Amino acid sequence: MNIYPELLKTLIEYFRKLPGIGEKTAERYALALIDLDEDDLESFASSINQIKKELKTCEICGHLTDKRKCYICDDETRNQNLICVVEDYKSVFMFEKTAKFNGVYHVLNGLISPIDGVNPDDLNINSLVKRCDKLENAELILALKPNIEGDTTTLYIKKILEDKDIKITRLSNGIPMGADIEYIDILTLERALSDRKEIV
Amino acid sequence: MNIYPELLKTLIEYFRKLPGIGEKTAERYALALIDLDEDDLESFASSINQIKKELKTCEICGHLTDKRKCYICDDETRNQNLICVVEDYKSVFMFEKTAKFNGVYHVLNGLISPIDGVNPDDLNINSLVKRCDKLENAELILALKPNIEGDTTTLYIKKILEDKDIKITRLSNGIPMGADIEYIDILTLERALSDRKEIV
Repeated sequence: MNIYPELLKTLIEYFRKLPGIGEKTAERYALALIDLDEDDLESFASSINQIKKELKTCEICGHLTDKRKCYICDDETRNQNLICVVEDYKSVFMFEKTAKFNGVYHVLNGLISPIDGVNPDDLNINSLVKRCDKLENAELILALKPNIEGDTTTLYIKKILEDKDIKITRLSNGIPMGADIEYIDILTLERALSDRKEIV
Repeated sequence: MNIYPELLKTLIEYFRKLPGIGEKTAERYALALIDLDEDDLESFASSINQIKKELKTCEICGHLTDKRKCYICDDETRNQNLICVVEDYKSVFMFEKTAKFNGVYHVLNGLISPIDGVNPDDLNINSLVKRCDKLENAELILALKPNIEGDTTTLYIKKILEDKDIKITRLSNGIPMGADIEYIDILTLERALSDRKEIV
């Protein structure tokens, strides 16, 4: 069915490339753009155009930034000896939203996955090791996905750093806050049971 | 909380201007843009930039088009004596999706609403009257929203065309297909009852 002008069809196509957007929603967004005023459209378009030019990765931690160093690595009030190791910059944004973490990050840019051909050398692991060499009494929190790739990466990092004087921790697993035990998967429930904590 | 680079914040802001997009979804879309490749981003941006330049309204019916005449008015196989009068181009797209209507359209570009200061002169009603003058045995289907503004506009158009030899109809109201009678609003149910049709 060819009911849309070419330009609208193109816009619908691009909206569909965004996560979770189906045909109907993409149409709705494309049509909604028409109602924006010209200035908004121009500045929206130029922002999209700038993405690859303006956004780069922090030379220290690999997080997304528009400067050489991200604002986190640049912040002297943060504990540079406490490094939270994450899969990607999306995780950084999530942790930053909690506003409870006063350390810094290291963005691996993926997880080890031999099946998908992702080896340790493809990730920012070497830079992590180099970073650790300069630290004393440091702690590394490995905050990776609790699946095979995440566990493999966690074990790999633990192994290559075992000679160094670094404390390595991982996030706790267990029942999400507010969740109904009835609906928790068995693996999580097992973990919550074996990792149970004493009430003090 | 200022965890995003400026450019991302701008993008999030623009996504929020689209209908039904909240903070979290806007963030998700903005971050997803980063994963698109540069060509896609450039062509997405340039499409957005072209909207106001390329899309105009059909000189006959007022529908959205990238030509002087829309493909519907330009289609000689369609019945030019059967005009479906709609509030905006979004309605045209909806009717076109049914692929069941072989007439043409007239886009009013709004509904009469004295409260909001929208008078008949602000709408494409004069062009509708002129269009009707050239027709014989025509039918006008007033497919406007079933609310005060829609009804006012319907009555107004019926009145100014009453001297002309034009059949004026409206869409049927009633229970939506597949809907549960339990959950239908009372007004719709009343209308469905009074507009009941004999089973033949």
